[in-house]
Amino acid sequence: MAGKREGYVFGYDFGTLSCRLVALDLADGALAGSLEYEYPHGVISETIPGTDIALLPDWCLQHSDDWIKALTALSRDMLVKTGIKGKEIKSIGIDFTSCTLVPVMEDASVLCTHEQYRNRPHAWPKLWKHHAAQQYAEEIETLARTHTTWLKDYFGNNVSSEWVFPKILQIVREDYEVYKAADLFMEALDWIPFLLSGNLTRSTAGIGVNAFWVKGLGYPDKRFFEALDARFAGVVAEKMRGREVLIGEATGFLKPHMADRMGLTAETVICSGHSDSAVAGCGAGAVESGDMLLVMGTSTCHQMISRNYRAFDGVCAIVEDGMVPGLYGYESGQPASGDIFSWYVENCMPKDYAEEAERQGVSRLKLMDEKAARLQPGESGLVALDWLNGNRSVLSNYNLSGSVIGLTLTTRPEELYRALVEANLFGSRRIIENYRNNGIEIKRIIAVGSLARKSPFVIQLLADILGDFVVVPQIDNVPAMGSAVCAAAALGSGRGGFNTVQEASAALIPKERMEYSPNMKNHEVYNELYVYYKTLHDFFGMDDALMRGLKNIKNAFI
Amino acid sequence: MAGKREGYVFGYDFGTLSCRLVALDLADGALAGSLEYEYPHGVISETIPGTDIALLPDWCLQHSDDWIKALTALSRDMLVKTGIKGKEIKSIGIDFTSCTLVPVMEDASVLCTHEQYRNRPHAWPKLWKHHAAQQYAEEIETLARTHTTWLKDYFGNNVSSEWVFPKILQIVREDYEVYKAADLFMEALDWIPFLLSGNLTRSTAGIGVNAFWVKGLGYPDKRFFEALDARFAGVVAEKMRGREVLIGEATGFLKPHMADRMGLTAETVICSGHSDSAVAGCGAGAVESGDMLLVMGTSTCHQMISRNYRAFDGVCAIVEDGMVPGLYGYESGQPASGDIFSWYVENCMPKDYAEEAERQGVSRLKLMDEKAARLQPGESGLVALDWLNGNRSVLSNYNLSGSVIGLTLTTRPEELYRALVEANLFGSRRIIENYRNNGIEIKRIIAVGSLARKSPFVIQLLADILGDFVVVPQIDNVPAMGSAVCAAAALGSGRGGFNTVQEASAALIPKERMEYSPNMKNHEVYNELYVYYKTLHDFFGMDDALMRGLKNIKNAFI
Repeated sequence: MAGKREGYVFGYDFGTLSCRLVALDLADGALAGSLEYEYPHGVISETIPGTDIALLPDWCLQHSDDWIKALTALSRDMLVKTGIKGKEIKSIGIDFTSCTLVPVMEDASVLCTHEQYRNRPHAWPKLWKHHAAQQYAEEIETLARTHTTWLKDYFGNNVSSEWVFPKILQIVREDYEVYKAADLFMEALDWIPFLLSGNLTRSTAGIGVNAFWVKGLGYPDKRFFEALDARFAGVVAEKMRGREVLIGEATGFLKPHMADRMGLTAETVICSGHSDSAVAGCGAGAVESGDMLLVMGTSTCHQMISRNYRAFDGVCAIVEDGMVPGLYGYESGQPASGDIFSWYVENCMPKDYAEEAERQGVSRLKLMDEKAARLQPGESGLVALDWLNGNRSVLSNYNLSGSVIGLTLTTRPEELYRALVEANLFGSRRIIENYRNNGIEIKRIIAVGSLARKSPFVIQLLADILGDFVVVPQIDNVPAMGSAVCAAAALGSGRGGFNTVQEASAALIPKERMEYSPNMKNHEVYNELYVYYKTLHDFFGMDDALMRGLKNIKNAFI
Repeated sequence: MAGKREGYVFGYDFGTLSCRLVALDLADGALAGSLEYEYPHGVISETIPGTDIALLPDWCLQHSDDWIKALTALSRDMLVKTGIKGKEIKSIGIDFTSCTLVPVMEDASVLCTHEQYRNRPHAWPKLWKHHAAQQYAEEIETLARTHTTWLKDYFGNNVSSEWVFPKILQIVREDYEVYKAADLFMEALDWIPFLLSGNLTRSTAGIGVNAFWVKGLGYPDKRFFEALDARFAGVVAEKMRGREVLIGEATGFLKPHMADRMGLTAETVICSGHSDSAVAGCGAGAVESGDMLLVMGTSTCHQMISRNYRAFDGVCAIVEDGMVPGLYGYESGQPASGDIFSWYVENCMPKDYAEEAERQGVSRLKLMDEKAARLQPGESGLVALDWLNGNRSVLSNYNLSGSVIGLTLTTRPEELYRALVEANLFGSRRIIENYRNNGIEIKRIIAVGSLARKSPFVIQLLADILGDFVVVPQIDNVPAMGSAVCAAAALGSGRGGFNTVQEASAALIPKERMEYSPNMKNHEVYNELYVYYKTLHDFFGMDDALMRGLKNIKNAFI
């Protein structure tokens, strides 16, 4: 028997630069409040905070204290701003950038917060876009390709340096003391619920993407890890403990001391963690087989829901129950999207353009969007590769780098900017094409994330480049909404929540959406340009000797 | 018997954006004065002056009125500023950007200055970097490759769209009325002496580079032009009239009405014209076999002096007497150098950098040089192709375009800038390597031009990239000095001048010079990067399908 739906759920979305919190009314899904908290330390890539200890290239860390501050500050602010009482918050769901890896002590504290480990870079949480484990990813990939079938069957036959085990193997090899000192290595998406409830769980939506865990098979066996390094043999048994849980599953109740800090009560249900990309399905109402969800922000994550299982290259992971229980969730992605456009406006946008943006009172990105939108496809004569943060799909190679072809003395800033945007969307087309070529039916393309909401220019270009309709739900903070949906499911219908994430999503997520129709004349031009894009893609991507060589020379000087 | 050396010579250097004038004392070579005049119309690439008539892409025109203003304003200013009397100016030499092509009427006036032709783009002088005759260059090249030997023997088997006949053929095909109306087509370097003396001459240093004229052979015959277009058959006889003259040869005396306008006398000797690149040999004291002169400004021109004749690809022209009578002058080049760096600071330099330059009171280019100089070779992980204005040597293809490979989210502005500079110097290395590979001995590398004088950063990088010493004469306005040297030779020893340009150069040109030694550690890194540069050079250059395709798509939208 269903409990009365009253009170609220919290949905936290831990992003790359900030954390967002939404509070949803369980009665009708009304958005009671939405807040954001910027991490004081942001992305740590230069020096260890409070020290002169320099990080090597491709290192990206975060400070766990920032996350705890986000948890408490946002909760207390939300109660003050909305007038909701602490006891009215019935359940908390969280999602996190993934795979962000945390070395954890027995008391759930993070190694870097202990004085004796503070100065050791490996004691710090490694952000998803920490790419310094590339060589270890390659080592694991080589072994898994030759000695296992699961890599090909569930992980696109590639190992990303962003995942759990390359990041841990880096610690084994580069700072074994830290490896030994850590009681556990956890994805941040599991660590937050652990911190909140005190119960150790691992979301299958996380480990099924990032830790080689497969439903029915579990983790790879001890011999696999032993073959990589004798010291690595016990990693699963010793460092990966934790009960596997589904998304939208309750893991316990809020611990009293955390309840105090957050202004909540110890009756608050804690939901299992979710990744900030895969949670978007629940938040955007993308819960059907055939839905392709693009989570477009600093990077782009391609989330495909399908009733069918097909293994093919260019998919980072295939996870049963990964997005919607009972269906397969496929993940591919691009490790930089908005980050590239931000890089452009910070490093390449000329003074007169920046001043024009100031005069108009618009952001630099907005101004570049406006200027670039006035150009015609092909007008610039430029084609670019958007691999400024490497390539995740379909090449899965972080030695690759960005490039621009076709520059002339008359090339204007908006042409260069547009070429970078187009390149990023050609990358999406390449990924989507790869699904279709491999027999996965795509019925709807849904785009969410800050880019999808803030830049109609980018989404119209996406529709033109794909030659397909693109739907953008008119929802802010889709991941946070998805986490709130998961929280409502974890609460359960008996306590005034819902039975499943699908039910919760249907009841709580608003239905407004924008639909972008492709301009088929532009699409034809883009079909031509896409041929050149693929020529470059294959020339630089299939044999990476040139780009890898450049990176090697670059790294030798650091 | 030598006349007494007293009085002065004028050397005019007509550049892309301005004209420079030097006055040298014949007694000791002392620089009496040096002035510059910026063309009011500059480079005309948008609309015909005073109209809304838009020019097509790749069009670059100039206004002949600007040149006449430069002639008169500079002469009068020089007399006022130095106190020299008009009658003391014994001789005038001029050099001009080459090949800048002028449609001329019988009275020596330029077609565009006549009301009925003003609105016709083809009635205007076509600046050297007018590249809209590319298709006609290819047409001529195809015919000459299959039906002649002179193209291979003297012009590197390539036809540049910058040369005389592609530019005239464009007029035949696109505005035959203008072709018929023109009494002559002249290089500007010949037109200025014609205007001054009233005597129609053609400098062999000009027509030997740009108009297929070969000593002993003359121009191609009528049948060659007829095969291109029946209307083109008579081009040499009808439109290319004029007595061939050597550099440093007198063509007559200053016409009275021009003497009046310039404040000079009709006793002033007028010297044959010279190209602004080849004249630099006389101006920089590069007059020996084995001297490789780099004229580095908005573009770079490679001038090689050798006693040996060798025909090979990648040379734009081989001209007997072209730089020094009695030796062969070889020419190769890069159609953009300083132009690329200017493009960068205008289109890609971010606001905070531009503001830093303002605060420091230095030019943007100077600031970028300083920041880029602090980087190590290879540190950026970038390699670029500098073909933002096409490739002249060794590929001779203006469909090629610029590119940058190796971009990451951490790429800084000074890294991008440095990569463009390095690319330009790799291009120079490719050209120099090509000479050596073909048996032309290079004993000295001498760099002149604004880049060589203003940017020690660029020249040090050139030495590092070449692994060779680079000498930079401490002379401002080298081409204008060279024109003054030619004027002194044209005057002749009987009138107080010199017998030859070599004698005049030795007597009048100062000896101060800077020598840049290569850093061989950096050179080794550049050897590695140069391999990647050549990989890109060959991939995009040997088969231009991709870059040509991009240009075609671009042009289709205009």
